Amino acid sequence: MAKLIEDEVFMAFATYSAIVILKMMLMSPMTAFFRLTRGAFANEEDVALKPVEERKKLLRTHTDVERVRRCHQNDIENIVPFVLIGLLYALTGPELSTALLHFRVFAGCRIFHTIAYITVLPQPSRGLSWVVGMLVTFSMAYRVLSKVFVL
Amino acid sequence: MAKLIEDEVFMAFATYSAIVILKMMLMSPMTAFFRLTRGAFANEEDVALKPVEERKKLLRTHTDVERVRRCHQNDIENIVPFVLIGLLYALTGPELSTALLHFRVFAGCRIFHTIAYITVLPQPSRGLSWVVGMLVTFSMAYRVLSKVFVL
Amino acid sequence: MAKLIEDEVFMAFATYSAIVILKMMLMSPMTAFFRLTRGAFANEEDVALKPVEERKKLLRTHTDVERVRRCHQNDIENIVPFVLIGLLYALTGPELSTALLHFRVFAGCRIFHTIAYITVLPQPSRGLSWVVGMLVTFSMAYRVLSKVFVL
Repeated sequence: MAKLIEDEVFMAFATYSAIVILKMMLMSPMTAFFRLTRGAFANEEDVALKPVEERKKLLRTHTDVERVRRCHQNDIENIVPFVLIGLLYALTGPELSTALLHFRVFAGCRIFHTIAYITVLPQPSRGLSWVVGMLVTFSMAYRVLSKVFVL
Repeated sequence: MAKLIEDEVFMAFATYSAIVILKMMLMSPMTAFFRLTRGAFANEEDVALKPVEERKKLLRTHTDVERVRRCHQNDIENIVPFVLIGLLYALTGPELSTALLHFRVFAGCRIFHTIAYITVLPQPSRGLSWVVGMLVTFSMAYRVLSKVFVL
Repeated sequence: MAKLIEDEVFMAFATYSAIVILKMMLMSPMTAFFRLTRGAFANEEDVALKPVEERKKLLRTHTDVERVRRCHQNDIENIVPFVLIGLLYALTGPELSTALLHFRVFAGCRIFHTIAYITVLPQPSRGLSWVVGMLVTFSMAYRVLSKVFVL
């Protein structure tokens, strides 16, 4: 038990995984913040304390809220595969420097991706950070499959 | 191999993870149930057996179906991070009683969250269970980062 | 560390997990492909290079794009639980042949599910592959809970 967590590559994996998962989870409060400030809710019980005539108007979508939600969804589509593949990758015993390169590039890409998405930076900034992050996961998956292939 | 699964904290983690993942997966059949009973489908091939004039009307959204889907999405946004962070947390060797406290509070929160969402309980019941579940995951992530920090 | 990855069941798990996660990740570029060919975008910055009068028209939804996105979402709802439960399952030390049966049926179901979804095969082809894949995960979860139950 203790052995696994004492491995340096695994420790680096745990650190970067925790960081990108926390980043992903912060999209939830951010969605709540935009829902409250923009006045755009999805559930009738969320507006129950408002005056009756206002309620209907508040049950709507808002471009800012939808943007945060798309960003969150993109995180789920990319960060969850990174952590799952990264766990297997860390167990294949790669060089610490190679592993750190993968983890750092991915974490940097995803943090930049969120900034580019929320602050509406011009393309291809968001697109590039998305592609590079995905290539990191592909590279780790290639290493996993080349090490453990049992069909 | 056997050693990992013989650790009591890891066994508790495996138990609670399996429970909350099964809870999350049950949202899929529940969505299917609401789609069938409410007559609200997303794909044309799903209504191919109905009379032609009915088909168009069945390809619609329904508030009950959308509610279950939002509940499912909220599970994905919260339960997947819990399991991923919880795995790393279990490997850091916490006290069994502390670990059980984390797992039990989280599982309780998420089961209550689903009930509050589907039965439309008045707020802040749903909001509170969401926040407390998230705080449990943050607490585990804090422990992981304080034990394994390698940047 | 090395021991975990040398276990044959774990190697099989790693192989099939990597395959289904890669399959899931390929839905992202497929969504991008359909967005570009169908001319249906979600973000204003994605159409910034088009003539002004065209931009508004391109910010729309398209049935083909929505279909790929639903397929992707269904993958997230099913493949992520499979990998998480499968990891715990592999650690309980099942027979290699039993484990391979689970992994192969699941991978086959999900690949067929994507084909059925994208090429609009008549039901119940898509529905069946979804249900069978889910039953595989339930079967693994049952084994995990019967081996490690600590509440």
